[in-house]
Amino acid sequence: MRHLWRLIGAAEARTLRIMIRGVLLDLAGVIYEGDHALPGAVDAVAKLHDAGLPLRFITNTTRSTKRMVLDRLTRLGLDIAEDELFTPSQAARDWLSEHDASPVLVVHPKLESEFEDLPPRDKHAVVVGDAGDAFDYAHLNRAFRALIDGADLLALAKNRTFKDEDGKLSLDAGAFVTALEYSSGKEATVLGKPSPAFFKSALASMDCVPENAVMVGDDAEADVAGALRAGLTRALLVRTGKYRDGDETRFEPQPTATVADLPAAAGWILDHLS
Amino acid sequence: MRHLWRLIGAAEARTLRIMIRGVLLDLAGVIYEGDHALPGAVDAVAKLHDAGLPLRFITNTTRSTKRMVLDRLTRLGLDIAEDELFTPSQAARDWLSEHDASPVLVVHPKLESEFEDLPPRDKHAVVVGDAGDAFDYAHLNRAFRALIDGADLLALAKNRTFKDEDGKLSLDAGAFVTALEYSSGKEATVLGKPSPAFFKSALASMDCVPENAVMVGDDAEADVAGALRAGLTRALLVRTGKYRDGDETRFEPQPTATVADLPAAAGWILDHLS
Repeated sequence: MRHLWRLIGAAEARTLRIMIRGVLLDLAGVIYEGDHALPGAVDAVAKLHDAGLPLRFITNTTRSTKRMVLDRLTRLGLDIAEDELFTPSQAARDWLSEHDASPVLVVHPKLESEFEDLPPRDKHAVVVGDAGDAFDYAHLNRAFRALIDGADLLALAKNRTFKDEDGKLSLDAGAFVTALEYSSGKEATVLGKPSPAFFKSALASMDCVPENAVMVGDDAEADVAGALRAGLTRALLVRTGKYRDGDETRFEPQPTATVADLPAAAGWILDHLS
Repeated sequence: MRHLWRLIGAAEARTLRIMIRGVLLDLAGVIYEGDHALPGAVDAVAKLHDAGLPLRFITNTTRSTKRMVLDRLTRLGLDIAEDELFTPSQAARDWLSEHDASPVLVVHPKLESEFEDLPPRDKHAVVVGDAGDAFDYAHLNRAFRALIDGADLLALAKNRTFKDEDGKLSLDAGAFVTALEYSSGKEATVLGKPSPAFFKSALASMDCVPENAVMVGDDAEADVAGALRAGLTRALLVRTGKYRDGDETRFEPQPTATVADLPAAAGWILDHLS
């Protein structure tokens, strides 16, 4: 056996050892944009599914509840079970329960319902999502004052930008998380991508170790570098969504491959199955 | 001569060489808070003036025009000439002229008039001040998009906090400057304190080299560490305004001395005159 390992190259050995047994897919910018599916994306998901690969969908989108995201996927023709979709809100609820804390919300009004049934507690944690127009001075300053009074800081996501409905990049939650960190002197706990715990909980739900998984995303930092840092051996960057020229070399670790879109990513994965 | 230097201690040598010949004073939190003067502050300024020390007033406050700040000082009983007061807006106007650029303003509505007579130009620079309630998503996102389209980023100030009218700390401009830096990938040019150029222009106006000057402020970072980094040999931190317990050791370089308030700072300066 040792002899065999010495005869084949290191790269081949890696491929032999590390099979693809699970796929993580980002949503916005990979599968859909706004309310329409990206060309070939729904078929590409079906192809991966037909190849017998377990799939999980992990999103940092925090402008919609989990229910709303599932409904949108259904409208696009993708029937996803609730436990196949991972959102940062669920991770935040888990964190709040574990730490016995109530949230001080700086989130999109649509997301508030995800937290409304939590019991009041003495300890507080500021929870920041992509609040959109709710990112106003009054809300941010209230959160800042909670932080200097002792609250923890939770970031549903720390993405820098997202591709907005008008097709242009816009400020994402990360800008406002950073603003609160700067003035309060506190460091945020990031719950969505690129948090290794977030990737790992999605992988655990399909009994897949990180070494056997591949991630597909349009965010070179949170999706791709994040997945590789979490221990995945492969992460593909697609040139759709928020992708901008040069993103493939902007963050470390760099993507395993950069491909045109999700159909191309599915082709790459199927080519690398064995 | 060499022999003499060796005989006296280094600290004494420093004091012998470096006389105090000019004083820089911060305004909010040192001389006034809201619309009232701090106890003894106006008398303390008069004492420094009577001792023959040239004074300059340097503020990072960007919620008021220079005219409004001068009028407020007059109401408090301090008659300051226009060229004795240094504000970041003037530094921004100078920068825009030198770089042939038009401003994209994220500033308090009261400050907009300071920029309204500038000619339109092809090149742009985002100018961020303490915008207060004007820090909304729409304004910040417009600024972000200008940045990724090529505009430069100018920070009138990058202070983390200020003491608000209700006596509590609030988010200052620095939070929003940092937010824009994070999402755009651009680094801001800071024009107010702690920019060395800002301190030096105030000192130059009274023919005082940094070594001969002393700064008095309530912001351990922008006022005190900033002044010492700009080459001043002395900077005093007052325990009024935004000062919080432990500020004297929170930033490097640390204050030459930390004193109760401006009257105590004036006493320290007069004691160290010769």
